[in-house]
Amino acid sequence: MIQNKPKILLIYTGGTIGMIENPETKGLQPFDFTHLIDNVPKLKMLDYDIRNIQFDPPIDSSNMSIEHWCDIAHAIEEGNDTFDGFVVLHGTDTMAFTASALSFMLENLQKPVIITGSQLPIGEVRTDGEENLITAIQIAAARNKSGEPMVQEVAILFENYLWRGNRSTKMSANNFNAFKSNNYPSLAKIGLDIQYHEESLFRTVTKRPLQVHYGMDPNVLFIDLFPGITESTLRHMLNTPNVKGIVLRTYGAGNAPTSAWFTDAISDALNRGIVIVNVTQCVNGAVDCSLYDTGNTLSRAGVISGHDITSEAAITKLMHLFGMGLPASSVKKYMEYSICGETTI
Amino acid sequence: MIQNKPKILLIYTGGTIGMIENPETKGLQPFDFTHLIDNVPKLKMLDYDIRNIQFDPPIDSSNMSIEHWCDIAHAIEEGNDTFDGFVVLHGTDTMAFTASALSFMLENLQKPVIITGSQLPIGEVRTDGEENLITAIQIAAARNKSGEPMVQEVAILFENYLWRGNRSTKMSANNFNAFKSNNYPSLAKIGLDIQYHEESLFRTVTKRPLQVHYGMDPNVLFIDLFPGITESTLRHMLNTPNVKGIVLRTYGAGNAPTSAWFTDAISDALNRGIVIVNVTQCVNGAVDCSLYDTGNTLSRAGVISGHDITSEAAITKLMHLFGMGLPASSVKKYMEYSICGETTI
Amino acid sequence: MIQNKPKILLIYTGGTIGMIENPETKGLQPFDFTHLIDNVPKLKMLDYDIRNIQFDPPIDSSNMSIEHWCDIAHAIEEGNDTFDGFVVLHGTDTMAFTASALSFMLENLQKPVIITGSQLPIGEVRTDGEENLITAIQIAAARNKSGEPMVQEVAILFENYLWRGNRSTKMSANNFNAFKSNNYPSLAKIGLDIQYHEESLFRTVTKRPLQVHYGMDPNVLFIDLFPGITESTLRHMLNTPNVKGIVLRTYGAGNAPTSAWFTDAISDALNRGIVIVNVTQCVNGAVDCSLYDTGNTLSRAGVISGHDITSEAAITKLMHLFGMGLPASSVKKYMEYSICGETTI
Amino acid sequence: MIQNKPKILLIYTGGTIGMIENPETKGLQPFDFTHLIDNVPKLKMLDYDIRNIQFDPPIDSSNMSIEHWCDIAHAIEEGNDTFDGFVVLHGTDTMAFTASALSFMLENLQKPVIITGSQLPIGEVRTDGEENLITAIQIAAARNKSGEPMVQEVAILFENYLWRGNRSTKMSANNFNAFKSNNYPSLAKIGLDIQYHEESLFRTVTKRPLQVHYGMDPNVLFIDLFPGITESTLRHMLNTPNVKGIVLRTYGAGNAPTSAWFTDAISDALNRGIVIVNVTQCVNGAVDCSLYDTGNTLSRAGVISGHDITSEAAITKLMHLFGMGLPASSVKKYMEYSICGETTI
Repeated sequence: MIQNKPKILLIYTGGTIGMIENPETKGLQPFDFTHLIDNVPKLKMLDYDIRNIQFDPPIDSSNMSIEHWCDIAHAIEEGNDTFDGFVVLHGTDTMAFTASALSFMLENLQKPVIITGSQLPIGEVRTDGEENLITAIQIAAARNKSGEPMVQEVAILFENYLWRGNRSTKMSANNFNAFKSNNYPSLAKIGLDIQYHEESLFRTVTKRPLQVHYGMDPNVLFIDLFPGITESTLRHMLNTPNVKGIVLRTYGAGNAPTSAWFTDAISDALNRGIVIVNVTQCVNGAVDCSLYDTGNTLSRAGVISGHDITSEAAITKLMHLFGMGLPASSVKKYMEYSICGETTI
Repeated sequence: MIQNKPKILLIYTGGTIGMIENPETKGLQPFDFTHLIDNVPKLKMLDYDIRNIQFDPPIDSSNMSIEHWCDIAHAIEEGNDTFDGFVVLHGTDTMAFTASALSFMLENLQKPVIITGSQLPIGEVRTDGEENLITAIQIAAARNKSGEPMVQEVAILFENYLWRGNRSTKMSANNFNAFKSNNYPSLAKIGLDIQYHEESLFRTVTKRPLQVHYGMDPNVLFIDLFPGITESTLRHMLNTPNVKGIVLRTYGAGNAPTSAWFTDAISDALNRGIVIVNVTQCVNGAVDCSLYDTGNTLSRAGVISGHDITSEAAITKLMHLFGMGLPASSVKKYMEYSICGETTI
Repeated sequence: MIQNKPKILLIYTGGTIGMIENPETKGLQPFDFTHLIDNVPKLKMLDYDIRNIQFDPPIDSSNMSIEHWCDIAHAIEEGNDTFDGFVVLHGTDTMAFTASALSFMLENLQKPVIITGSQLPIGEVRTDGEENLITAIQIAAARNKSGEPMVQEVAILFENYLWRGNRSTKMSANNFNAFKSNNYPSLAKIGLDIQYHEESLFRTVTKRPLQVHYGMDPNVLFIDLFPGITESTLRHMLNTPNVKGIVLRTYGAGNAPTSAWFTDAISDALNRGIVIVNVTQCVNGAVDCSLYDTGNTLSRAGVISGHDITSEAAITKLMHLFGMGLPASSVKKYMEYSICGETTI
Repeated sequence: MIQNKPKILLIYTGGTIGMIENPETKGLQPFDFTHLIDNVPKLKMLDYDIRNIQFDPPIDSSNMSIEHWCDIAHAIEEGNDTFDGFVVLHGTDTMAFTASALSFMLENLQKPVIITGSQLPIGEVRTDGEENLITAIQIAAARNKSGEPMVQEVAILFENYLWRGNRSTKMSANNFNAFKSNNYPSLAKIGLDIQYHEESLFRTVTKRPLQVHYGMDPNVLFIDLFPGITESTLRHMLNTPNVKGIVLRTYGAGNAPTSAWFTDAISDALNRGIVIVNVTQCVNGAVDCSLYDTGNTLSRAGVISGHDITSEAAITKLMHLFGMGLPASSVKKYMEYSICGETTI
């Protein structure tokens, strides 16, 4: 009997991992994916069946868009019956947004989608790209004792940790340990071995076929509070044309000014049917609206608590829910739940 | 000759450190400052001359405003000749904003202004407030070998560290170690002793009298980028009435979309005289506009690099510079410099 | 029906938490326990029934001995039917040894034994002792949803964490965060709330009456390897009169020299019936004798792998097993098992 | 004029970085150094003049001996006029001992000696060896603004940090971030760039020719205290034949039992001319003999304080000082000083 090789699909979207220097500007620009394989001879040591597709042209992740997310999701949908796992090479800048978006778009995902990249190009003499790429491919091929895929969700592999995608944040602009999920344990620790934390891995209770939701509504917005913000400024932002959902980035455990003008402006927006989600500016910890009077005011007005969701997951979840065509009342309801492990409650 | 006792002014603005439970809502509400002294009998062990003033009513720091900052600054100005140091008790939620604002408002400060608070009320059986208060007072009274105040800047004392105020961020909504300055070393480590890191403490080259700048212009704004943001949304925010300065929260080392519509919208705002400062969404690391083409585009368009400034310091620095009545060209210039230790360059 | 107050027994053995300055030497010396209660007025806020006993005289934990461990164990045995939980105040220096020893001595323990202390005396103006004491008492009284004691093991409470006692090590001579269990997660995180990690708490499968083992055999020894150690030195230590058990502190994952003279010296000791346990000098990680040839040699010679046990737990476990009168063969067997959560395997 | 290429000497002693699987035992064994170059094609990208020598046979670092240290030191002495820097590939197990020993042996060193290795073999598909090797070579070639070698001391490069060699400890048996200098800041942080912390780098005040001290006296010993240690055991170890120096691993800030039998045993050894150095068992912090009565006793008896020296540096420093033929009185004196940055005082 033949033991099949793991089949892995590598989706190269662009990013530092495959960049070269632009001789004119001295800035870095993405280049052709074939350079990547040339630069990682060790890939041959893995006796895997690795196929790859790439974005043409590769894109800097600062230019990542809804269309690109759909392209990635589509590649996964197409390859879902063929491949054992997926590795997405992606710039680090918007990686946490993409990981969050994909987690919402890929309903019933039962295969690993491992997103990775690097802080230094894989072609450089000193690089973190090679280790990240190889480890990501090994994770995408890993199976548990029952022979099922070890990871059955969208995850970010970076340096020494595997993180849940919709829990991750880019913490550092210039360190190798750039990512972290501040409110959720790591899915695996990369050391001498890859140690999976099986109790932390996402599992669906039932198994149903993969269903991809391509609709993502861009009419959403972040509003960051700061002391001194004026009523006029706040109302102007709340009145952004066509906006359906707002992530209100608040203080501490979900607090905001309790002045009448503030609450009134928020209430007016809510009354116009806008969904407002309360997410803390702190990278760690959760919104807890029962704690302080200041938070209570928002909650009483009808602002939804984002609990311990990241800003990246909150904005993409709003895009997803409105993109499904749901009415505001349903969007509010699902923003309070975890739909694929993005909040603790 | 008589060795005088250290004279410390305690300014209680409100915050968890002095809260009690509201019997009706079960939420916490600020109470009268005298409770604080009653609850910290150990204050008597410090043979200091401690005076206090308090906000009436005490305010939740989510309601902190420019007027309140002026009140604190005024108290310091009034007491500057009398007191050796100042301790400001403040809610943690907006503490980093207040610390940043005060650092800009208090030009030529040569005395310690130590801001502290707590995550649990000082009257509770289990509290971090008592240790924070006592340590803050000791730091406010500390002198170096030359007999000068050890700390000559606005700093945040929280749990085991003293941080530069305009470098600090509230990292956690529910841990005792809530604050951190991600791009600057701590000013002191609190252990068996208080170990000052003298090489990190701010010092002016020349000494001039304290000059307080009360003007703070509220016509500023945060814009947080996210993949999928529409031209209409971006332009609407850039067109906020009266806005003079914007902190553009970008990806990684200062990156943003390079699409023509994006650059055009930014350029249009710059052409209208708005100052836009590029600050990274990452809590650690700096904007480096030479690195990537995507960052270069912003830089070429005239967006100012915020280097490694925090979001809190960037927004309050804009408020301060515009509040001084400076024209946009001067504001741009000073946003590129460190005026009181808020950026590395 | 009357809801009884939690009954807690406080056992004060000595340590910094209750020290005062010796006017002559300026060093610190332990003092009478009544000072402790005087200095923590907040204890009254806990409406608990707190009794206390104390060592007379209180002892510096550097002088902790087997007799003292028996005294603590005896107090717990005597109070086991009366009290809901126990708090042991102890100097930090040997706290990890005591916690390990008690965990082995108290078979079938089903009540919390929380050991705590402080880096600064509780009577000082700036102290960590008060928070540690109050939190320890609250943990000793805590119950889970089933109404059973939340903690049913010997644990160390220090600063912001509760650690399993026989997994803990004193990491720092002068920081407030002095303890850590490098190979086991924390049992609780102390923040706004005390968050118990219930999946990490020790539970016996069956429940039997507390059985205290007072026998502890002191004929044990640490041998620390270093490059250059001579055969003569090694053999001299292995020949220590009466020694029954040795903790051999090796390199990395359990490695030692493979020279014939080294292996022969070890083998000779093993042949004389001495039990030798391989524990790594690294504070984190485990002995893995399958990995390298150098480790294999020890293992083949008959040295027992200590897996990820701490040095403190290894030495006290040897004292306990020999103290029960077990022959070397049984001691070897139980050193390979976890008898109360001290190793992962 | 010709700008010369950096000339680097690579000294391969053995260690995981160059290991392969033994087909019989399935354990790992060292192999020939030429495999290393084959496995790191990127080395060619550095346009450096890299020469290499290797131990024949390569040795597992658990077998590292004084002779091997002399071989490394000799290679450096021979190449000192020819090469700009040295990279020593070494197993991680005893790396901190070797780094400490070399720092003492190489008096007046003014060139970089960068020791590195890896947790996984460089020939494996997933490895940390390649990044460590390349970064170490770059550091060995780095110059500061004055054109002098950036690093002028023995340092350990591991994963993301450069540490002073005689301050380092292997912290973890199975993580990539295995090393740390707990009492001294890192010399460099490896991220997008290699950021040197110039204020932390060791510099001699005067410059004199390199002088290598090959004498290392092996008659030294560790004694680890533990509660319950008997007088008989302690005296037996103190009476180890020929022993000249002992590192007494004590509790916390340098504490030990104050019983008369303990002090007497120590005093007897001191009276026989043995040098005893007090080093804490804690990985962080320092011995402070003024603090507690228990520490004072040792200090009064004539035990030398090791301050914040590591165990690895303490034992090799004793070997070095006795190896120079110094009398006990001089050894005591120099143990109290920093001779090449190994203690803070």
